[in-house]
Amino acid sequence: MSWSQSTFTLSPRTRGCYLITDEIVQNLPELQEYKAGLVNLFMQHTSAALTLNENWDSDVRLDMTDSLEKIAPESWSFRHDAEGSDDMPAHIKSSLIGASITIPIKGGRLATGTWQGVWLCEFRRMRHSRKVVATIQGEKLK
Amino acid sequence: MSWSQSTFTLSPRTRGCYLITDEIVQNLPELQEYKAGLVNLFMQHTSAALTLNENWDSDVRLDMTDSLEKIAPESWSFRHDAEGSDDMPAHIKSSLIGASITIPIKGGRLATGTWQGVWLCEFRRMRHSRKVVATIQGEKLK
Amino acid sequence: MSWSQSTFTLSPRTRGCYLITDEIVQNLPELQEYKAGLVNLFMQHTSAALTLNENWDSDVRLDMTDSLEKIAPESWSFRHDAEGSDDMPAHIKSSLIGASITIPIKGGRLATGTWQGVWLCEFRRMRHSRKVVATIQGEKLK
Repeated sequence: MSWSQSTFTLSPRTRGCYLITDEIVQNLPELQEYKAGLVNLFMQHTSAALTLNENWDSDVRLDMTDSLEKIAPESWSFRHDAEGSDDMPAHIKSSLIGASITIPIKGGRLATGTWQGVWLCEFRRMRHSRKVVATIQGEKLK
Repeated sequence: MSWSQSTFTLSPRTRGCYLITDEIVQNLPELQEYKAGLVNLFMQHTSAALTLNENWDSDVRLDMTDSLEKIAPESWSFRHDAEGSDDMPAHIKSSLIGASITIPIKGGRLATGTWQGVWLCEFRRMRHSRKVVATIQGEKLK
Repeated sequence: MSWSQSTFTLSPRTRGCYLITDEIVQNLPELQEYKAGLVNLFMQHTSAALTLNENWDSDVRLDMTDSLEKIAPESWSFRHDAEGSDDMPAHIKSSLIGASITIPIKGGRLATGTWQGVWLCEFRRMRHSRKVVATIQGEKLK
């Protein structure tokens, strides 16, 4: 049973959903050493989120961004509005989608489905740098 | 500290929410060997989800299906619509509910609450087979 | 590699979102012994949830409570209504937000971001006691 923990920063992005599977894997070269295990990716922020979703048609990311805006629209009136009209909806979306995901590892790779990728959902309009704490546990390849 | 990883396929189902606690446990006989630990259930798909919810009244599952349809309705217009009008709403619901759950194990059983069960939420109208990667970590019974 | 599992009960609360980081940490003194690791907090209930969100402005918690009520309102008609009009919406919110969170541990503390705290979201109007199963895995400090 081996394990490792590291922190890295994702490229800053404006509001939207982004496929970041490659960026995650590049930041975690130690993944390749694990025969089997789990990786937990934890975002240290409250107005962005990590999720798993479709990895092929970029329209899905655009539709997701628009749909989340419909589910928690800026037009609602909020007490918390000092940081801009996109801030409180960002907090809502962050808890709906979630700050963290856990993915199985198999044979040195993420054991995701064929059409499944890791998404960063950035909910603030302005470009933000987001920090991720990655914790890997598992059995290493001999 | 012991651990194991396996992949199994859930019975194919049409759109709806289903109580699958027994199906999960039957697919994971090794659960009984763990005195305490965690099991991560990870669905390798992007238009279905796993969650924990009420295990007694089947009306809760029907109400959940209808409510998710209200939260992310097919009637919204989407860019991504080549796979049918239920496809993009399925992707949205999948990220809202989540592809994966982690459940504690205690005394060889899932340490869920009295009224808590594992649910499969299938968001596509057509019957789909869904693969789950189960990863267990913990301390085995002597 | 060390690990521990314990169950504790959160102070009962009426409907709303609550910052419970301190209450969690007080219930888990063993956290301080871990150099690095993960803690999984699992709520054994289906009408409340755990999430991570903003830890500074209490208005965010009020806005979240109101917003979740807009996303899954009591005014919808439900089959499952014997336990009160707030019960089915509570089940929906519980699956949207999630019953469980996994947080990295670093240097004996939760490795949360500066503005990030643990929230209990109680979705029932009446005060409820909520049980949490905490499972910690990681490397202990020498």
